[in-house]
Formats: sequence, structure tokens, C-alpha cells
Amino acid sequence: MHNRWGRLAVLGAAVLSFGALAALDATAQDDKRVRWKMHSAFGGRLTGLGPPGIQFSDLLKKMSEGRIDIKFFEPGALVPGLQGFDAVQTGSIESSWNSAGYFAGKEPAAAFYTAVPFGPQFDEFMAWYKKGGGRDIQWEIYKPYGVRPNVCNYVSPESSGWFRKEIKSLQDLKGLKMRFFGLGAQVMEKFGVSTQLLAAGDIYPALELGTIDATEFSNPAIDLDLGFFQVAKHYYFPGWHQQATFVEFQANQAKWDGLNETQKLLIDVACDANLTNTVADNTAAQPSALKKIAEKGVTLHRWSPEVLAALEKAWNEVLAEQSVKNANFKKIADSYLAFRKEYETWRKLGYIH
Amino acid sequence: MHNRWGRLAVLGAAVLSFGALAALDATAQDDKRVRWKMHSAFGGRLTGLGPPGIQFSDLLKKMSEGRIDIKFFEPGALVPGLQGFDAVQTGSIESSWNSAGYFAGKEPAAAFYTAVPFGPQFDEFMAWYKKGGGRDIQWEIYKPYGVRPNVCNYVSPESSGWFRKEIKSLQDLKGLKMRFFGLGAQVMEKFGVSTQLLAAGDIYPALELGTIDATEFSNPAIDLDLGFFQVAKHYYFPGWHQQATFVEFQANQAKWDGLNETQKLLIDVACDANLTNTVADNTAAQPSALKKIAEKGVTLHRWSPEVLAALEKAWNEVLAEQSVKNANFKKIADSYLAFRKEYETWRKLGYIH
Repeated sequence: MHNRWGRLAVLGAAVLSFGALAALDATAQDDKRVRWKMHSAFGGRLTGLGPPGIQFSDLLKKMSEGRIDIKFFEPGALVPGLQGFDAVQTGSIESSWNSAGYFAGKEPAAAFYTAVPFGPQFDEFMAWYKKGGGRDIQWEIYKPYGVRPNVCNYVSPESSGWFRKEIKSLQDLKGLKMRFFGLGAQVMEKFGVSTQLLAAGDIYPALELGTIDATEFSNPAIDLDLGFFQVAKHYYFPGWHQQATFVEFQANQAKWDGLNETQKLLIDVACDANLTNTVADNTAAQPSALKKIAEKGVTLHRWSPEVLAALEKAWNEVLAEQSVKNANFKKIADSYLAFRKEYETWRKLGYIH
Repeated sequence: MHNRWGRLAVLGAAVLSFGALAALDATAQDDKRVRWKMHSAFGGRLTGLGPPGIQFSDLLKKMSEGRIDIKFFEPGALVPGLQGFDAVQTGSIESSWNSAGYFAGKEPAAAFYTAVPFGPQFDEFMAWYKKGGGRDIQWEIYKPYGVRPNVCNYVSPESSGWFRKEIKSLQDLKGLKMRFFGLGAQVMEKFGVSTQLLAAGDIYPALELGTIDATEFSNPAIDLDLGFFQVAKHYYFPGWHQQATFVEFQANQAKWDGLNETQKLLIDVACDANLTNTVADNTAAQPSALKKIAEKGVTLHRWSPEVLAALEKAWNEVLAEQSVKNANFKKIADSYLAFRKEYETWRKLGYIH
């Protein structure tokens, strides 16, 4: 290479031993380069969930002029879709683009970092997460697993679900078979719904065959891609169970500790920037998707205030039950609810609703 | 210096001419270092407005390991507080931490990038700005001035104002003298309010002496610092005139064009990250400030839906008047209102209010 340092190095080499120079190169390399694999729980084409992981990876590469290369791998390319957390824990993969909710089998408390029913919007969540102690508790809870998470991607409010038949009252829910994710499933069970969790690709055929009567999956932009409008004609809002959803970047703790301060900072800054960009992308994508869905002959419904109040009451019961069962769950719930309580006065007073 | 490159350079110097080395240094400097002055329109201690400019400057320095140094200067240190835009335009200062609204004397349309009455929240604004064409129009409108702006700091919803006497109906506004900023002032004038713009430091004495009967300034956290609770006991919400407010980083266009792609990217990424952080900081700061203000014996009021509807109707008149007067204003208003109209269906359906 004929750049200036190359020339200086060549000249220098005349008076330094070859071994000394090689050692210098190796040190410089270790200091400056990060080459990590990042398993993704979401396909690179799954609107709002996968592409932001690719954006994050690309952004870091550009910010660092190629010195931080955290490569996005499709679900299944390294390990199966839902095994990212375990692989990061053992260190077989350095990092994962993942949902905290997929770790809720081991730690039910982790659900708070994806979404919980009747949870906050972006602004309130970020206030609790960054300034209200939310992230500190998260780091504490993940630490025994050797995983260092950081929220990195926002997803717009979900729909409450696709139903093959209209739901005229809560009584109509009784006996329904429905695909449902997370803590919201426990709320639905209280109304006599039989819930199960199905992967994205298995939902459409189950709805079509009548194996399930209803499903929630995500927001209009994502749901439109999955084609549910062809087999269910009643689409309900608001998605009380996931008003704002977050995806996180999970790093193996030992690998993370091996980074220098600038590398750590650049990765966290890329997440913060990705949050702003995913707020813009996701929010912009919903209105036109909703319009397209309506044009397919789907009826858009909004739950009445009474139905929402009944669902919220049931959620508060689930919250109390989980808090008794699990100390970490209680710890996060207490922090979260205390923050939300103080915030509520401000929210009601200060905002146009 | 005794690091390895220092030693190599010294050795190299023995066989390269001094002039050649000096030239190398100068080129390396141009490629890698940015040393800019950044005038701030807001004092470094003015909660929510000044400190985020300092955070932005510090963040960039750390991200670039000192190679991008955009130094924060207090209002008046380089030029008076409101003259940042002009100084950036002439190039006498490279950049400014500023409100687009302070440029509205030249370009009334710029107000859309600070806040307009009955405007969007953070998520909807970012969707319009980044994905709905808002930023493209902004760049086009600022271009003839040789200034390259980027939104860089979010500020929580303002209060509607501090009043010395309770306002029981819109008739009570008639004849009041009030400090008011921006397009909202024109709305207030329609209800018989005589408005004037006062700088932050001049508001308290004017309220105390009775030169004005009322003032709006900002949100609870900022207003608390300014002590208005001592001289006005009625605090109204919501701040319909500024639901979300933005501060921008303005760069001289020629200086901006002289940066390399990585430098440009790092500056824009620092702004995006700053947005997420200011959403967290600002949102977290309001509830406790509101509580403290109430504890000072201030009565918190919320405008009735009828009052808000009357204010919104008056705002729509102002919007129509301004659109007739100014082509750029009309251009932005058209883009903004079309976006908002499509978004409205989604907002009403998808969110818990």
C-alpha cells in the first residue's frame, strides 16, 4: 500500500526488526476491530423487526469505518430462531437481535422489556428505562446469565387481533382458540380463551383451517405482510397487550467487557439512534397499511371503553399473581408501577389526547 | 512522545525531508479533525434546552475520540442569543444550537420545525420529518440561506401558561397582556389578548410588576426553574400551542460540505441518539416538577374540551391566513396536514388515550 504511513512504516522497518512491527500490527488490530456474529430472532424481511437489525449493523459499520462489524444472521443460520439468548449466554455467538419476551420462560420479569399489557408509549417507556431505573434493574437481572442487553428498536402499537367472527361482547370470547403472545395470553385465559403460541409462519394455515379462531401478531404494517386479511375479516384495536414493543441487542457479557470504551459507546449510541429511526419508520408505515387492509374488505373495530376496562382489571389480577410467584417480577413491577403512577397525573394534564 | 508511531515518525524523518512530513501532518489533520464553534441560543443551564446541546457536543467528542470537537458557547459569548442563524449564514461561526422558530422572522414556515399549535407528538413528528418529506422540505427552504439544519433535541409539552387570575371562560382572556411565542400568539390575539415576546429573564419581573398579566414559557421542569409560581398562581394545561418542541443543530452549508461522509454521519447519528435521550430526560423530569409546583400553592387547571375546540378553530384560521401570505409556509403546511390527516385514523384506532 502506498499511503503515507505505509511508506513511513517501510522506512521504519529498515531500522526496526520485522518481529517488532508485526507485534505492533496485532495490537493495533485488537484495539480497533470488532468482528461479531449477531443471531436474529426475526427474519431480515419481517417489517419493523428484522430490517432494523440490519440497519443497526450497517450503521455501526459506517460509524466505525468498518472497524465494528456486527454481522446480522437470519434465524436458523447459526441457531434456531428462539435460541439466541442461550447461544449468547454460552458465548458460542457474541450477540443476538432479540426479544426480551423470548427469555421470559427463564425470567418472567423480562417481559417488561418487550411489552406488557396496558403498558406505556415510547416516551414514557424511555423515561422509565433510562431515567427511572428500568435499565439498571434489567442489567442486574440479566447479569447472572452473562448477557448484557440494551433496548435498540421500537415497534408501533399492535392490533388486538384478527377474529374470524365479530366479537360483540366479552362473552363471545369464551371458548375461542387464539394465538396469543406473552402476559396478555394470561389475561385472555381469564375470559375463557384457549391460547397457544404459534410462530409467524404457522399462523396463517391454522387460521385458514380453523385450528384457531383468532390471532394477534403485530401492527398493521407487519400483519398486512402476513396476509391474515384473507382468512379473518374482523380486526380489533387498540392492542392493549402491546402498546409499544421493544427489541434488544444482547451481547455476551465477557465479550462486551473486552471492548474498549469507545466501542461500547458507539454500539449504545447506534441503538439510541436506531430507536429514533424506528419510531419514524414504524409510525410512518401504519396509516397506509391500515388503509390497504380496510380496502381488502376487513372491518376495523375499536373495543369499547367497558371492554378495555374489563381487560385492564384482568391484567391487574395477572400482575398481582405473577408478583407473588417471582421476586424479580415483583421488583420490576414495583419500580415500573411507581414510575407510572407519578407520570399519570402529568400525562392526563399535559397532553392533548 | 514515546508511542510507537511517534518513534517510527522520528525514524522516518531521518530519510524524509521536514517539508514532506509537515505536509503529511496538515493533510491528516484536515481529514480527521473537526474543530467548530457552536453558538447556543439557550443557556447551558436552562433545563431541557441548553444541557442537551452540551450533551450533544460531549457525545460527539467521545464517539470520535476527540476528532470531532464542536464546542458549545453560551448565548452572547460569540454573538447575542438570537443571532446564531445569521452568524452561521455568513460563516462567521460554523454552527448553532438553535430554535427554527427564531428564524421565523425571515421564513415564517420555519416555525413548523420548532412547534406549531395543535401539532404532533414526538412519534408522529419524527414520522413526518424523516419519512413523510418534512426534512427534505426543510433542507430546500434553508438552502438559499446556506444553512444545513437537523432536528437534534426534543422538549416535552409546554404548559398553556401562567395567569395571575383564574380564567373561567374565553371572555376572561379579552384585554389581557401576555408574553407569547410563535404562531400561538396570533391565535391568542383572536381572543383579544395583547401579546408580546419577552426573553426568559425578563418575564418574571414583568409578571411581578403587572406589566403583563400572564405568560407561557415552557414545560413544568423549565418553568419551575424560572420561579413563575411566586407571582402567578393559575397554571393551565395542555399547552395546545407547543405539544412537542424541537431544537436543531444548524451548520454552515459550505463547512458541512467540507466534511467527509463519516463525519457527517457521526454528527447526524449524535442528533438521533440525542433525540432518544432527550425524550427520556424531558419526560422523566415533568411529573416531579409538576408536583413541586402544586406544593407551592399553584392551582393546576385543564382547559375544557370546548375551550380547546375554540382555540383549534382560531388556529385553523391563522394557518389559512399564513398559507395565503407565504408560499413556503403553504408548501410545508400542505405536506404536514396531508400527513396528519392520514395519520389521524391510525392514532384514534391504534392507541390507548
